[in-house]
Amino acid sequence: MLDKVKISIDVMGGDNSPYKTLEGLNLFAKRNQNINDYIFYLFGDETIINQKLSNFKYLENNYKIFDTKIVVSNELSAMSSIKKGKNSSMWKAIQSQIDLAADVTLSAGNTGVLLVMSKMILKTLQNVDKPALAGLWPNENNMNIVLDLGANVECSEKNLIDFSEMGSALFKSLFPNEKAKLSLLNIGSEEIKGTGILKSTYAKLKQLDQFGDFEFCGYIEGNHITKGDVNVIVTDGFTGNIALKTAEGTADFLTKNLKKALSENLFSKLSAVFSYFSLKRFKDRLDPRKYNGAIFLGLTGPVVKSHGGTDGLGFSYSVELCYKIAKGKLMDKIKSNLSHTQNLDEKI
Amino acid sequence: MLDKVKISIDVMGGDNSPYKTLEGLNLFAKRNQNINDYIFYLFGDETIINQKLSNFKYLENNYKIFDTKIVVSNELSAMSSIKKGKNSSMWKAIQSQIDLAADVTLSAGNTGVLLVMSKMILKTLQNVDKPALAGLWPNENNMNIVLDLGANVECSEKNLIDFSEMGSALFKSLFPNEKAKLSLLNIGSEEIKGTGILKSTYAKLKQLDQFGDFEFCGYIEGNHITKGDVNVIVTDGFTGNIALKTAEGTADFLTKNLKKALSENLFSKLSAVFSYFSLKRFKDRLDPRKYNGAIFLGLTGPVVKSHGGTDGLGFSYSVELCYKIAKGKLMDKIKSNLSHTQNLDEKI
Repeated sequence: MLDKVKISIDVMGGDNSPYKTLEGLNLFAKRNQNINDYIFYLFGDETIINQKLSNFKYLENNYKIFDTKIVVSNELSAMSSIKKGKNSSMWKAIQSQIDLAADVTLSAGNTGVLLVMSKMILKTLQNVDKPALAGLWPNENNMNIVLDLGANVECSEKNLIDFSEMGSALFKSLFPNEKAKLSLLNIGSEEIKGTGILKSTYAKLKQLDQFGDFEFCGYIEGNHITKGDVNVIVTDGFTGNIALKTAEGTADFLTKNLKKALSENLFSKLSAVFSYFSLKRFKDRLDPRKYNGAIFLGLTGPVVKSHGGTDGLGFSYSVELCYKIAKGKLMDKIKSNLSHTQNLDEKI
Repeated sequence: MLDKVKISIDVMGGDNSPYKTLEGLNLFAKRNQNINDYIFYLFGDETIINQKLSNFKYLENNYKIFDTKIVVSNELSAMSSIKKGKNSSMWKAIQSQIDLAADVTLSAGNTGVLLVMSKMILKTLQNVDKPALAGLWPNENNMNIVLDLGANVECSEKNLIDFSEMGSALFKSLFPNEKAKLSLLNIGSEEIKGTGILKSTYAKLKQLDQFGDFEFCGYIEGNHITKGDVNVIVTDGFTGNIALKTAEGTADFLTKNLKKALSENLFSKLSAVFSYFSLKRFKDRLDPRKYNGAIFLGLTGPVVKSHGGTDGLGFSYSVELCYKIAKGKLMDKIKSNLSHTQNLDEKI
């Protein structure tokens, strides 16, 4: 690697920031101590950042602060944020991909504002109609990429095809040794099921399979997402958002009931003590902080959104995601994959 | 109660039937030993049924067998089943609502065939465009009714309004002492979110709230389904099916990981022994067999579909569902609720 990976961070966005964001950066830096490998561009209030930095010993010679006093508030609408937001830490962190050739931008701030600002500054890639929001979703073998998670309520065949190519590119940059296996989310696995848009997307993905960007594995149903035999799952933003939140709600509901069962009486409390380590391992393995971070795909540069309510550990994993995206040459892979959809269009 | 509840059962449908279905009926009969209260009309092969009946001591003077030799196979398509199916146990069990004034029909057979046959025989209610498939979904307080779970891929405002009135009627027949609290499933809780159809449905439900069939509680997101502050959740069949199956998949995935954690080594195995009773209570509380059964709403009579793969206990809960639907006067409630949508249309 000749160049350092340049990660721009809106350190002010999200709950308990900048303490949380700096803690996350520090945790990442502790795990990756090669300071010739990356640099953090920190956008936020320099005075506050400097006050906190003394807590984080792995943040040394691996960052540069860009003093920005304005913070995008969670209460503001996208439009009013943007009016006064051109001097905000969020805006500047995105803009740095142009001004400072940063590789990727990370923020834990308001999703809607981040999406609008990213589109305004970075612009949508040529031949992509709509950017999508992609996320990591654990499965029995490793991780899925699922998209769109809510950026686009209604999607055309062209959108779903773009999402397929971009999602596969993201998968390959994160997991270079694995094959991208793509499926469309549907209400049945038979070819005749689903909406007209899904059916025509299915036919086109079968043709695109030849380029090797992904292996097209047909439709899957919701109960199949976590099985692990496919790993890139494409759907419209309405369905994707409902599926993701329903899964989160179900996990919460089960965990709450499990805790209740383990604290009901003295005997069950005692049993909880005995199963402490097993349950801790169970929790660790599925800790949502470990796959924190949604990725905007389809702009001229990658932007990662950390969960606003996560903690330092969660934030450190979204820093890692940014690092992997840059190392894995996501943008080159996206452009290469998208060129295949155009080749096919020209052939037809 | 002057009349007995008359429940017609396709005893041949589903895995391990008729043993499983008879076992389920026996379990229900054990829980409800008032034989003046209900009667089972059993449709299936009389010889086979009679061979099995000796195992089930609570099945006595509370059933009548209607000998039908043909069974709808799970491998056949809806259309080919129907051609030869007019003498099948499934067809006859539905037809008995007309011929024998049965109150409700139950089958664990093929869902698609059951839906098509039910529509052919019972017909759609006047002023209802599309029947829907409703299911029970546990929440932190009790149970939700969620619909549509997959009968209709695309739904209009009129469909969603009908589903709201019918779903609320179902909730009130099952839980007469509770208030139906209705929400539309969406990707945000703010009034401006979602598709055009959702927005116009929202506006109309706000007006329909005045009739007292339900309290309209606005939009909810997927992670809110299990919270328990609403209990009737309406969505189109595509989204509902994906949400339901994603929840099932998530629950499976978590349970599997929990089991793995509790059997990894000697210590964790030991801890599993200690937490056996707590975990058993946890499992019992959320046992999906306890809310087995999807209900076709919008036909001139109620039809309940049991999960094909459930066991006798699961089947007994779908028998209970049928019993409650009949006792709770579901059809009267549906007609009364639907009349309010017409009143509103006439006013406008």
